[in-house]
Amino acid sequence: MRNIKLVLAYDGTDFCGWQVQPDAPSIQGTLASAIGRVTGEKVLPQGSGRTDAGVHALAQVATFLSESVIPAPNLVIALNDLLPASIRVQKAEDVPLDFHARKSVFAKTYRYRICRAAICPPFLARYVWHYPYTLDFDAMLEAAPLVEGEHDFTSFAAVDQEKNHDCAEPAGSRRNSNVRTVFSSRWRQEKDEFVYEIRGNGFLHHMVRNLVGTLVLVGKGTLKPSHLITILEARDRSRAGATAPASGLYLVNVEYSWPSGK
Amino acid sequence: MRNIKLVLAYDGTDFCGWQVQPDAPSIQGTLASAIGRVTGEKVLPQGSGRTDAGVHALAQVATFLSESVIPAPNLVIALNDLLPASIRVQKAEDVPLDFHARKSVFAKTYRYRICRAAICPPFLARYVWHYPYTLDFDAMLEAAPLVEGEHDFTSFAAVDQEKNHDCAEPAGSRRNSNVRTVFSSRWRQEKDEFVYEIRGNGFLHHMVRNLVGTLVLVGKGTLKPSHLITILEARDRSRAGATAPASGLYLVNVEYSWPSGK
Repeated sequence: MRNIKLVLAYDGTDFCGWQVQPDAPSIQGTLASAIGRVTGEKVLPQGSGRTDAGVHALAQVATFLSESVIPAPNLVIALNDLLPASIRVQKAEDVPLDFHARKSVFAKTYRYRICRAAICPPFLARYVWHYPYTLDFDAMLEAAPLVEGEHDFTSFAAVDQEKNHDCAEPAGSRRNSNVRTVFSSRWRQEKDEFVYEIRGNGFLHHMVRNLVGTLVLVGKGTLKPSHLITILEARDRSRAGATAPASGLYLVNVEYSWPSGK
Repeated sequence: MRNIKLVLAYDGTDFCGWQVQPDAPSIQGTLASAIGRVTGEKVLPQGSGRTDAGVHALAQVATFLSESVIPAPNLVIALNDLLPASIRVQKAEDVPLDFHARKSVFAKTYRYRICRAAICPPFLARYVWHYPYTLDFDAMLEAAPLVEGEHDFTSFAAVDQEKNHDCAEPAGSRRNSNVRTVFSSRWRQEKDEFVYEIRGNGFLHHMVRNLVGTLVLVGKGTLKPSHLITILEARDRSRAGATAPASGLYLVNVEYSWPSGK
């Protein structure tokens, strides 16, 4: 038996999200079907976590067990041949059987892109949040790092607890805890875009989009940067901003503690 | 009565092309409907020429007559508010009544993007032709300018003559002629892409995509650069290469002789 690890990029716009659903095209289901056609095996690949409808990935990680003898590099070619162009397998490799796409996660990085142009180019519309209104970028720069460190992120978590604890939980005993460690939380400017990047050991459902929605309230002047701390401490979802649109969000990188730090 | 000129960018992927069709979403029809909602008038905007299904535009030009008193800058905002994000009005301005979006054209520029990466990023799939196989770029560089000048482009024209003579015909007496002047025809390399740009006084239906398909045959070594001249002289569509996919093609710029050179 082999444990095969895939690194995937996808344009999430036309999918209902990562997780397989009965009546809607999902990344996981589309991938499962391509694997089935290549290997003849019925498998459900396990991702490093879910991504929601419309959320993109530059390097999602998924694993599946297989008896196939097809070499990993050939799998990349065969799967890309069958998958829609909106999902690409970047890499395939054999990993030990105890490697787990979700449980072995050490850190994940997400990126969020806000297009600041007055008119959003149609070629970017699927890939950014178009927000052309006035924002105080310095205030957003100041606010972002205030969530770095270990915190209870309940104020930034979707209310559906089940999904929270399925989403991107690292190995160990965190079930039912909303405590996560954010290693870095920063904005940068790139041409017409405000780009937010956050790296942490795990993320609750909607956490990045809720942080972005709240940081935009800081940019608008509705909140002060220091309010980020007050909101964190309140552990109350109603205190934070609205969930930013899915189109701007990318899963950029998944890091594993395995094999060394396991 | 006002004559209003719009400059439009669009992602053509999800449209049946520029021209209005009864049962499919077209750029022209979608725009007409937005104009109708803004001005209360039933108009069919006239483009500088048709673009086919899946072909994009950075700066298509269209005009329509209107009795509306809405200032041009406000029209931009109102139309973008109603149009899907895949169509953007970049600019609106009042032009004299004798300005004609198609007949006043002096030159048009098209761009064609070929993605050369082994694996095409899913975010580019709608916007390029993914062609990862070996190509002799030097041969393509040599061949491209050989079509510059005034030529009969019958070998590179779609066989449907009606569309040819509707497509991008400049002012004057060229109806039923396949003679066009290409001012420049060049390749350049940009990161993982081969980018072709052609500027001319008019283009026959499928002309740019057929030129690209033929230039790729030169890159593959199937044809020599000098064959471009032989193919032109043959005035026979069957001599040229296949039509390159729509996804890589962009209408980049439309230049008008009006008012000076009319």
